[in-house]
Amino acid sequence: MTGAASNLPAVSGTRLLDRLERLARVGAIDGGGCRRLALTDEDRAGRDLVTGWMRDLGLAVTVDAIGNVVGVRPGLEDGPPVMTGSHIDTVATGGRYDGCLGVLAGLEVVQTLNEAGITTRKPLAVGVFTNEEGARFAPDMMGSAVHQGSLALDEALDARDRDGVRVGDALARIGYAGPEPVGAQRAAAFVELHIEQGPVLDREGIAIGAVTGVQGISWTEVVVEGVSNHAGTTPMDLRRDAAYAAAALAVEVRAIATRLGPPQVGTVGVIVPEPNLINVVARRATLTVDLRNTDDAVLQRAEALLADAIDRLAAAEGVGITTRRLARFAPVPFDPAVVELVERTARGLGLTVRRLPSGAGHDAQMFAPNAPTGMIFVPSRDGISHNVAEHTDPAQLEAGANVLLRVLLDLAA
Amino acid sequence: MTGAASNLPAVSGTRLLDRLERLARVGAIDGGGCRRLALTDEDRAGRDLVTGWMRDLGLAVTVDAIGNVVGVRPGLEDGPPVMTGSHIDTVATGGRYDGCLGVLAGLEVVQTLNEAGITTRKPLAVGVFTNEEGARFAPDMMGSAVHQGSLALDEALDARDRDGVRVGDALARIGYAGPEPVGAQRAAAFVELHIEQGPVLDREGIAIGAVTGVQGISWTEVVVEGVSNHAGTTPMDLRRDAAYAAAALAVEVRAIATRLGPPQVGTVGVIVPEPNLINVVARRATLTVDLRNTDDAVLQRAEALLADAIDRLAAAEGVGITTRRLARFAPVPFDPAVVELVERTARGLGLTVRRLPSGAGHDAQMFAPNAPTGMIFVPSRDGISHNVAEHTDPAQLEAGANVLLRVLLDLAA
Repeated sequence: MTGAASNLPAVSGTRLLDRLERLARVGAIDGGGCRRLALTDEDRAGRDLVTGWMRDLGLAVTVDAIGNVVGVRPGLEDGPPVMTGSHIDTVATGGRYDGCLGVLAGLEVVQTLNEAGITTRKPLAVGVFTNEEGARFAPDMMGSAVHQGSLALDEALDARDRDGVRVGDALARIGYAGPEPVGAQRAAAFVELHIEQGPVLDREGIAIGAVTGVQGISWTEVVVEGVSNHAGTTPMDLRRDAAYAAAALAVEVRAIATRLGPPQVGTVGVIVPEPNLINVVARRATLTVDLRNTDDAVLQRAEALLADAIDRLAAAEGVGITTRRLARFAPVPFDPAVVELVERTARGLGLTVRRLPSGAGHDAQMFAPNAPTGMIFVPSRDGISHNVAEHTDPAQLEAGANVLLRVLLDLAA
Repeated sequence: MTGAASNLPAVSGTRLLDRLERLARVGAIDGGGCRRLALTDEDRAGRDLVTGWMRDLGLAVTVDAIGNVVGVRPGLEDGPPVMTGSHIDTVATGGRYDGCLGVLAGLEVVQTLNEAGITTRKPLAVGVFTNEEGARFAPDMMGSAVHQGSLALDEALDARDRDGVRVGDALARIGYAGPEPVGAQRAAAFVELHIEQGPVLDREGIAIGAVTGVQGISWTEVVVEGVSNHAGTTPMDLRRDAAYAAAALAVEVRAIATRLGPPQVGTVGVIVPEPNLINVVARRATLTVDLRNTDDAVLQRAEALLADAIDRLAAAEGVGITTRRLARFAPVPFDPAVVELVERTARGLGLTVRRLPSGAGHDAQMFAPNAPTGMIFVPSRDGISHNVAEHTDPAQLEAGANVLLRVLLDLAA
């Protein structure tokens, strides 16, 4: 297979890195990262740069009503394209690879095919989807959700940021409220290249992740109501300590995830006691619980265990505990044939590969209900992402783009 | 004894309540509480009111260099006075009894003796001590500490609030930087009446607490350094979760206090994860540990158990943990004869009484090394203090003042 593979074209790692570097200069911040929040001037400048590259490569570029940019490369036949792509918006202090890699590797695939004179049977398309991060406007994955019909256009356009700015107005302001209708674009298949944003591939020294699906997510806000008291004068057995109950619940969340075993994860990232003073037993504490699993039945079991733990703690500590669901997404499985194709393709290129779920949400999951869909992961050094220190080695970026090239060729051939 | 007691004068509860009410109007805030932070305009107005009452009662009023106001009622003999008193400064949202009761009950004792025509052998004195709360300037119990020589005057005068205002300048501004030298005033004895600020008397339905001493206090700030990671993509066994370690330590603090048993208490009032986001494993968390005991050996054992727990958690979680001592006060035992006198006096008045330690610091503890010292507690409803809802029933306030009257008469007779 390596012999056969060597007869196929390969991407230019240098060219890919050059485009990544030039895009990273738009909204660059200290430490090598980017601040290119959705629909800001920085986002516009990034879009202008990428759209220019698309046109230079001969793609037919459209912009739809939610600002998604799609560049299409014709195939021998008409019909829905095999799509790739991702996003170029970032969190407030983001890295240079999250999203951008998927978009620019798509362009690199196109350029490689152009130079090799290869025309696929089906058309190919590269998408840049609006507001994947959700760092400025909720929900995240907004553009791909509208594109695939799981979010109504009007609802998306009416979303507002903390300053009250509407998505629709922000899109118009930056010139990306396009004429292309949404909700009707079908894809023959969708494959997205992305950094893992987790530590698994890096720790195990594996080059490629064949992503089996996106974990289901359950977010709960928990508010504990206790009684504020003097830390010196209140005997332990007379306390109704909201901070203690919050801490005990955080310990329980770890126990639940450990009990259910991988891939179950559970995180308490937010703990806010009130009044948060050294010598006052807290009257109230707010915490958040983030539970994720690829198996919805197990995720539901984790949620049930959390509810049990809350009931037990409330009774034992004499505190009131209320919960509010902040988010709930069922797991999204990717197409087994695409997962298998990614795995086989990586092996064929002599790359180490393993299957793993995605812990984070991605644009690809919006395509999964409507088309054969998969993702390719490359390692994130130390698992760091949403951070200016986000890093993937150049050779790993290039390897991921070559897997993308072969997978797209296979799907479109 | 009740027959004998009835021949002695008794305070006027109505008059005591009236003065408490009039002082509570100075810096009154919603809910019936007070905001009379040390050395503010409100503190000045409160001092002016109390000092006026002192002069009306014929006391010889002095103001010392740290702003302590002392009113002396001559005795048949010269020499150091038997002292009582407390403070009238409050926390930002304080109650109307904390401190004020001790000062105004002292004035009520003076007025009762004046009206009964009783002159004690030793002089009596009522003190109003500067900045007991420490809510604006550190350290707390500042005035009494300087008065009794455990804090240098210059150091106290140079303390600054969050806005950089010096104690010395604030004192001068409100006209309470007095001419009386400090550090030389001896007391023949010191007894302070105060609300318990804890729930013990209220829960047990007991009228009077004979305070055995002030708990030792150990305050530690703990900083956990972990690694920030994506909550969805990082398997549980690869995490170095600072928020988890902080929560687990808070649970350990409870376990330590429970293991050592009463009167050991342990409180984690502050927990601050960073970045404190729902979907990010915390890179850092700060928490505070407040340990108190009346027995310094047991308190040291609690500190040792805390250090052990920190070492175990750091190793188990792969996090760095550093600690910083914020405060350490050894327990202060009160004079056994004074404790016994308070107990006997309460019983003699037909009041229920129990011995108990003070969980909070008080001006009295500054006198304990230099003179026979004790305190009288009255109940705090539901143990609530440092809160506008702080409450003690009028009959309980009056009972406490009558105990103070008899105890001072005994000590000064």
